[in-house]
Amino acid sequence: LKVFSLNSNLGLAEEIAEVIGVELGKCSVTHFSDGEIHINIEESIRGCDVYVIQSTSDPVNEHLMEVLIMIDALKRASAKTINIVMPYYGYARQDRKARAREPITAKLVANLLETAGAHRVIALDLHAPQIQGFFDILIDHMQAVPILADYFEGKNLKDVVVVSPDHGGVTRARKLADRLKAPIAIIDKRRPRPNVAEIMNIVGNIEGKTAILIDDIIDTAGTITLAANALVENGATEVYACCTHPVLSGPAIDRIKNSKIKELAVTNSIALCEEKKIDKVVQLSVAPLIAEAI
Amino acid sequence: LKVFSLNSNLGLAEEIAEVIGVELGKCSVTHFSDGEIHINIEESIRGCDVYVIQSTSDPVNEHLMEVLIMIDALKRASAKTINIVMPYYGYARQDRKARAREPITAKLVANLLETAGAHRVIALDLHAPQIQGFFDILIDHMQAVPILADYFEGKNLKDVVVVSPDHGGVTRARKLADRLKAPIAIIDKRRPRPNVAEIMNIVGNIEGKTAILIDDIIDTAGTITLAANALVENGATEVYACCTHPVLSGPAIDRIKNSKIKELAVTNSIALCEEKKIDKVVQLSVAPLIAEAI
Ligand SMILES: Nc1ncnc2c1ncn2[C@@H]1O[C@H](COP(=O)(O)O)[C@@H](O)[C@H]1O
Ligand SMILES: Nc1ncnc2c1ncn2[C@@H]1O[C@H](COP(=O)(O)O)[C@@H](O)[C@H]1O
Repeated sequence: LKVFSLNSNLGLAEEIAEVIGVELGKCSVTHFSDGEIHINIEESIRGCDVYVIQSTSDPVNEHLMEVLIMIDALKRASAKTINIVMPYYGYARQDRKARAREPITAKLVANLLETAGAHRVIALDLHAPQIQGFFDILIDHMQAVPILADYFEGKNLKDVVVVSPDHGGVTRARKLADRLKAPIAIIDKRRPRPNVAEIMNIVGNIEGKTAILIDDIIDTAGTITLAANALVENGATEVYACCTHPVLSGPAIDRIKNSKIKELAVTNSIALCEEKKIDKVVQLSVAPLIAEAI
Repeated sequence: LKVFSLNSNLGLAEEIAEVIGVELGKCSVTHFSDGEIHINIEESIRGCDVYVIQSTSDPVNEHLMEVLIMIDALKRASAKTINIVMPYYGYARQDRKARAREPITAKLVANLLETAGAHRVIALDLHAPQIQGFFDILIDHMQAVPILADYFEGKNLKDVVVVSPDHGGVTRARKLADRLKAPIAIIDKRRPRPNVAEIMNIVGNIEGKTAILIDDIIDTAGTITLAANALVENGATEVYACCTHPVLSGPAIDRIKNSKIKELAVTNSIALCEEKKIDKVVQLSVAPLIAEAI
């Protein structure tokens, strides 16, 4: 068994290797002067079960090409099996044709991984569980809810309600609520007429309660921060938030800083750069979970 | 017949469309906040033969993913055939295992294009003609030598010798020389011992002649500028240079400016940014050549 890390999430890869009790495999992933990726695997992997840790987070195309080229190199170096650990699966939100003549890039990525030569993909909280069906190779799908639940359990919060920021996330909220033995509520946004501000209607009882918002991805953080503010305006005493994948692009960090969110718990499926490591954001490790799947 | 351009080389695409006498197809290729590519084709292409113009020049991974996602979108929008015009084929220099456990990325790229759903690829001066064999789909391979030859013929240079800057390029030099009815010479670099400077030995007669150096790709311009200086030192009266693909990364422009090269003729297979448009560099269009293949 060999574990290699590419460039997206070296910290997580090191943790995983430590939990399993192996050293990370030696390989160099660099760029030529013109920006082309150059990979060289620096130890024999002939006949080995190889695990490659790579999230296709921003820069997504760079990180995706790294993993495809790595798979090609491993295949040609006679790896026995090539297992791709992709804690964050980029392009997952392009999982259907929302409009005419759009691509389904999440399916394209699945095909590219197969074509390059991957045997198995280990993913975490795919934006839609249906993405599992995009693969003809083995796919393991892990969930971070237990990790988030353990964290909030440890805080001994009183009178908790778990809140889904939209209709799409109710199943996820239900799972966290089950673990925390709490009720759920839903933010039921609707736009009465085009070009009129959305109304944030809250379905369920949140008054005087500690709310925990949960989503899978927090990207620009518009939805989650508006939801938090609506909860406070409607009588929640405190608002926590959590998600699996902290994409946190564009205005996200400013929005979180300026919002009513007391604390945001996320996993390390995506590495956070220094500017994103603000006090309000707590990062929980998925290394033990992934190590178990390996 | 529909012609679409992606983001690498809009100028060339517009020229090609003009030569053919069509308008470029409408599509938007943008980025989401987190860097993921979003493509939307804004006109029906059902049942059409579609041509997509895209060079996988720097940023190569971005440009490659653009074309793969575009192919996916075209396929799902029921294009009859999807034809990829790739005047510059990125990763072409990774066309073999030069060392153990290296990838063959040029083959991987061929597989990715096929998997996405391309029916045919139109390429120009692939770094190795063998790359044609990496494809199971149709591949058309065009050559820029006639364009470069026409340009130098128009200059009415006296007593010309065509020079290959290394052994690998002699066939290419021979082709240009045939067109110009000129003899050839070869720069025969060798390193007598490790860690000793290379000796630039010139095979062929260049004294008192006008030398034209030819290569397929000029990247950091180390080879070509050293060759030019060696030619002048050995008695060439003037040195011109030419290539198909002006990658011109890193120190290339400075090296060319400070070299003995009088003028560098290149094609527009790769778009040049403003900083690369220096007086010494002349860009010749491959649009008529490509339009003919379409
Ligand atoms: N990277 C992205 N950033 C923002 N929106 C996206 C991204 N990828 C896809 N989308 C859009 O998000 C929508 C799907 O999100 P959802 O409804 O949450 O599944 C679709 O309309 C997509 O066009
Ligand atoms: N983008 C690149 N920039 C510089 N060198 C490269 C690039 N891609 C591949 N190479 C190396 O160039 C050599 C092949 O070039 P050549 O001998 O001219 O075919 C191989 O050793 C490659 O590792």
